[in-house]
Amino acid sequence: MSSAATRPDDPDHLWSVDEHLDDILTTVRPLEPIELHLLDALGCVLVDDVTVPVSLPPFDNSSMDGYAVRVADVSGASEEFPAVLEVVGDVAAGAADPVRVGPGQAARIMTGAPLPPGAEAVVPVEWTDGGLGEGPVNGMRARSLAPEGSEGQVRVHRPAEARAHVRAKGGDVKAGDLALEAGTILGPPQIALLAAIGRGTVRVRPRPRVVVLSTGSELVQPGEELAHGQIYDSNSFALTAAARDAGAIAYRVGAVADDADILRSTVEDQLIRADLLVTTGGVSVGAYDVVKEALSYAGDEDEAGGGIDFRKLAMQPGKPQGFGSIGRDHTPLLALPGNPVSSYVSFELFVRPAIRTLMGLTDVHRPRARATLRADKALGSPRGRRQFLRGTYADGEVTPVGGSGSHLIAALAHADALIVLPEDVESAEPGTEVEVVLLG
Amino acid sequence: MSSAATRPDDPDHLWSVDEHLDDILTTVRPLEPIELHLLDALGCVLVDDVTVPVSLPPFDNSSMDGYAVRVADVSGASEEFPAVLEVVGDVAAGAADPVRVGPGQAARIMTGAPLPPGAEAVVPVEWTDGGLGEGPVNGMRARSLAPEGSEGQVRVHRPAEARAHVRAKGGDVKAGDLALEAGTILGPPQIALLAAIGRGTVRVRPRPRVVVLSTGSELVQPGEELAHGQIYDSNSFALTAAARDAGAIAYRVGAVADDADILRSTVEDQLIRADLLVTTGGVSVGAYDVVKEALSYAGDEDEAGGGIDFRKLAMQPGKPQGFGSIGRDHTPLLALPGNPVSSYVSFELFVRPAIRTLMGLTDVHRPRARATLRADKALGSPRGRRQFLRGTYADGEVTPVGGSGSHLIAALAHADALIVLPEDVESAEPGTEVEVVLLG
Repeated sequence: MSSAATRPDDPDHLWSVDEHLDDILTTVRPLEPIELHLLDALGCVLVDDVTVPVSLPPFDNSSMDGYAVRVADVSGASEEFPAVLEVVGDVAAGAADPVRVGPGQAARIMTGAPLPPGAEAVVPVEWTDGGLGEGPVNGMRARSLAPEGSEGQVRVHRPAEARAHVRAKGGDVKAGDLALEAGTILGPPQIALLAAIGRGTVRVRPRPRVVVLSTGSELVQPGEELAHGQIYDSNSFALTAAARDAGAIAYRVGAVADDADILRSTVEDQLIRADLLVTTGGVSVGAYDVVKEALSYAGDEDEAGGGIDFRKLAMQPGKPQGFGSIGRDHTPLLALPGNPVSSYVSFELFVRPAIRTLMGLTDVHRPRARATLRADKALGSPRGRRQFLRGTYADGEVTPVGGSGSHLIAALAHADALIVLPEDVESAEPGTEVEVVLLG
Repeated sequence: MSSAATRPDDPDHLWSVDEHLDDILTTVRPLEPIELHLLDALGCVLVDDVTVPVSLPPFDNSSMDGYAVRVADVSGASEEFPAVLEVVGDVAAGAADPVRVGPGQAARIMTGAPLPPGAEAVVPVEWTDGGLGEGPVNGMRARSLAPEGSEGQVRVHRPAEARAHVRAKGGDVKAGDLALEAGTILGPPQIALLAAIGRGTVRVRPRPRVVVLSTGSELVQPGEELAHGQIYDSNSFALTAAARDAGAIAYRVGAVADDADILRSTVEDQLIRADLLVTTGGVSVGAYDVVKEALSYAGDEDEAGGGIDFRKLAMQPGKPQGFGSIGRDHTPLLALPGNPVSSYVSFELFVRPAIRTLMGLTDVHRPRARATLRADKALGSPRGRRQFLRGTYADGEVTPVGGSGSHLIAALAHADALIVLPEDVESAEPGTEVEVVLLG
């Protein structure tokens, strides 16, 4: 593991939150890029600079529905003394062979259609009689209903300067320009630009495939009957949802019983579709903590990057954690504690940044803010542990929701922030300023 | 159409942006709820209040790996004078029949396992010798490696109060409590709570299915060759991406040629999978504006809600717009203008709120902010039109990107905000405050 030098040898060493996070972020590398169709690349990070192959617009074209004219022919035109021009045909958008406009002539032209040879400007249809001989019109009649509109005469009521209502070739971007820089996140407008310059596919870092499995013989699938001593599996649902929310393609394996052999073979089976594995439960000091038991020796000691390291963090909730890599491809695996609040907080602090690092994003963390603590009484925190309490944040103030118990799921479901109490804080008084992680 | 009373009869009436938006939002109704599996409901809006069917935790259980004991048996225990107890067995999480703890006895217990009958408190394993007879330990040995840990004697080094390290039944939520209110948006923590109370499925408003089609005989699929007069179709890609980004399941049909019959039959074919249809192009005053031609009469005049109304908006870009409903189910259809910037701005202002209304969300608009205009010179805006320019926003300041031309896709791809210049503003000086729409 690349951070071996920084990891204390003492197995009872208490890791800080930052040491553990550093270990993860220096180990996890962005996924290899692949070529994806544009719409599959939404939300992904561009790997290469993209240059413009052909200017946009690719040709001079009309910005209005109107008539393509020669400037001299409409000079001094007015409604009282219109310029009367011979209509030589239509230029529709996408027309292959536009007509030529000679002296005394005009071509009826549509928005986006190429400026025909001979024409120097476009007059909007509203500046003409539309060929009807009855004063200014509001628009053209549909070609299919009135084919005669592409011939006859048109009266133009206003003059036009050269290039009026003409979009110049290359006026948006020119061939050879940089369209998008490597590292750009592809949202809808970036997809628009790539399509507009003719790119049907693009090289990006793909969304990581994240396999989520929870462990525990007490876990029952929601919707089924609970026997005494059983609870419903919520972690595999919550973390699969959270992984999707973070940008991953996430697969929920569900609950695996506390049996080291079953767990090991399940993990090995899943490796084929995983860029990252996340487990919950079985990482503490109990006699049935099978994740620890099954995966402690899963690495090949002869190869760098193999094996899962189980450790204690100076953190509440989330003290027991495992991290390492597994299998031939050294697939990273995060083993989170099993209490629902512990696993969710661990996800936000460690797994979400790992997923976003795999995606090639540079901004991998949830935003943080300073907030004034609104509470009836001081919040306690164990000395030497960084505590993450649940709260609701609004307008620069944060209010705790529920207690510190790592089994309090209902409070978690009503929170939108984590209140961070640092290692050296044992008590935070109402009205003091605290750091919050905004869960968004 | 429900807003018929507010719509002026004059076909040349210039609609305000707000009138058009009102018409859309009073016509489009949230989709009928359906029952979805939890993970399919991520991001959806809950339709009913959800109450807790069974208390959480469903039984008193241990919050630590340790030993379940009787308080009197460990009273006054210390490392020097430990309480020596007979270990009567293990209580693992999910164990069906826990042992009974009598006087002088202890059961080895794991986090989450039910407090066995007779026991009153849990002492963490770190407060004991773990049954090894050699002073305090850091944890238990795995059951599979050391089965003798569930019998023999344990030395307890510290006393425990009644209920110490015991999570009480119902300590999180009680049967009958309100778990989540109708209208809640289901994120990962809400999915966690629903799973924890045993809900495998949940009634939500589904993600709307949005069909996007662009029109124009000049449009070529990205990746193919351009002939003279042709451009690449970007709108169908951009708006499909934007619809997904807004929460929809979006289908890209792609470009349809300027032929009213083909367009009409394509739209009719797509109705089967559409909760909302979006078209681009063909809505202006030209002779080949086939969306207008094909859909102006698509409504059944005898039925309320049928037909697409084409109108002019006091807006730049985005003046020509169509809105109405189509087909037997009165599927809403928004016909946007074809210029790429016009169609994207129209999407943000009108289609995104429509999609979010279909989802049952109440917060349907992009956030807005006030910003100081950073620019070299004043921005001009046509009187009587609300202008939306592209800009980049940071720290309370907005800088325009590119010009006002509705064909400038490259500038759009580098913007993250729209600068709003109201109808009565003809010029905005550098340093003045303007409204911005944050594209996020």
